Amino acid sequence: MPLYTISTEEGVFSPEAKLALAWEITDFHCRLTGLDKDFVKIIFNTFPNGDGFVGGKVAAPAILTVLIRIGRSADYKKKMALELWTMIQRASGARDAQMLVAIQEAPASQAMEMGMIMPDVDGEPVLV
Amino acid sequence: MPLYTISTEEGVFSPEAKLALAWEITDFHCRLTGLDKDFVKIIFNTFPNGDGFVGGKVAAPAILTVLIRIGRSADYKKKMALELWTMIQRASGARDAQMLVAIQEAPASQAMEMGMIMPDVDGEPVLV
Amino acid sequence: MPLYTISTEEGVFSPEAKLALAWEITDFHCRLTGLDKDFVKIIFNTFPNGDGFVGGKVAAPAILTVLIRIGRSADYKKKMALELWTMIQRASGARDAQMLVAIQEAPASQAMEMGMIMPDVDGEPVLV
Repeated sequence: MPLYTISTEEGVFSPEAKLALAWEITDFHCRLTGLDKDFVKIIFNTFPNGDGFVGGKVAAPAILTVLIRIGRSADYKKKMALELWTMIQRASGARDAQMLVAIQEAPASQAMEMGMIMPDVDGEPVLV
Repeated sequence: MPLYTISTEEGVFSPEAKLALAWEITDFHCRLTGLDKDFVKIIFNTFPNGDGFVGGKVAAPAILTVLIRIGRSADYKKKMALELWTMIQRASGARDAQMLVAIQEAPASQAMEMGMIMPDVDGEPVLV
Repeated sequence: MPLYTISTEEGVFSPEAKLALAWEITDFHCRLTGLDKDFVKIIFNTFPNGDGFVGGKVAAPAILTVLIRIGRSADYKKKMALELWTMIQRASGARDAQMLVAIQEAPASQAMEMGMIMPDVDGEPVLV
């Protein structure tokens, strides 16, 4: 973890745009947490026109969800959501009404990476 | 939020059926909560035959998950699950054994929509 | 529930490999919990090369997430994560740095299967 899932309609991101956004998010996340980059997993989930709805109408929602370990402060997570919102909006060109950013959590002990159960969040890193 | 994800095998829903179901869920959710419709995001996740399994066998699971803000009562969420079950089953024609409806939660402070951190759930709306 | 989602790049699993892995996970889960097999739902989420990132670079992440009912002990969930890690790694051939296994939870009362709200986890089953 983190596990980022970015869901947008086909055509929103070129391959180059995905790479640039994945790099920006990864860099941001690692500066924020001090994690090694390889812990950051990102999957782009691309759906055809007609599979995304906002307000009950066909639209092109731009959704970022991220699963992190429990243990960060509310203030830390608000800052994280705000920064991610800005990155996704700039990269996708989506309007406010199309967008959603949500942070989900699970105990570190319920996640494995690098062949190991993840350690608990240790103290509170500072946003550089 | 809410963020609805509806996962079914290819061919279960026509474009018209998706639109009708998205409208029905959105209308239901907004009557239940009093939210403005634009907060309701729905993504249909369509997988090819052979990518869905029930009981270890290739099947056509029909899965609805929805991510909402923490703060609703258990009774409220049970009613919500029951209503969603009925809508998905009617629209998809899936049998009981193929279906799953699950409500996931995150703190309002961990979600952004309309350019703002979401406010906490305020009191208990009534199912109209 | 459980609801398993297994996300890999196209070409990692043949249809036969998906079937074998789905069967292995389902059998494991039912031996662990005593659940009837039909409660186990698995969806393979396959993405094209260029849609998965590890450490900010295009890679082929191999991700398993599973949504279960709240109520299992931490030790139980660690064992579950370890066993699932082994199964996914053997089936996918992914390296440690590509992989992530995460267990998410929701209250039983927020899930429906077989037309019923799920009962609470009852006591602690033993890993056979």
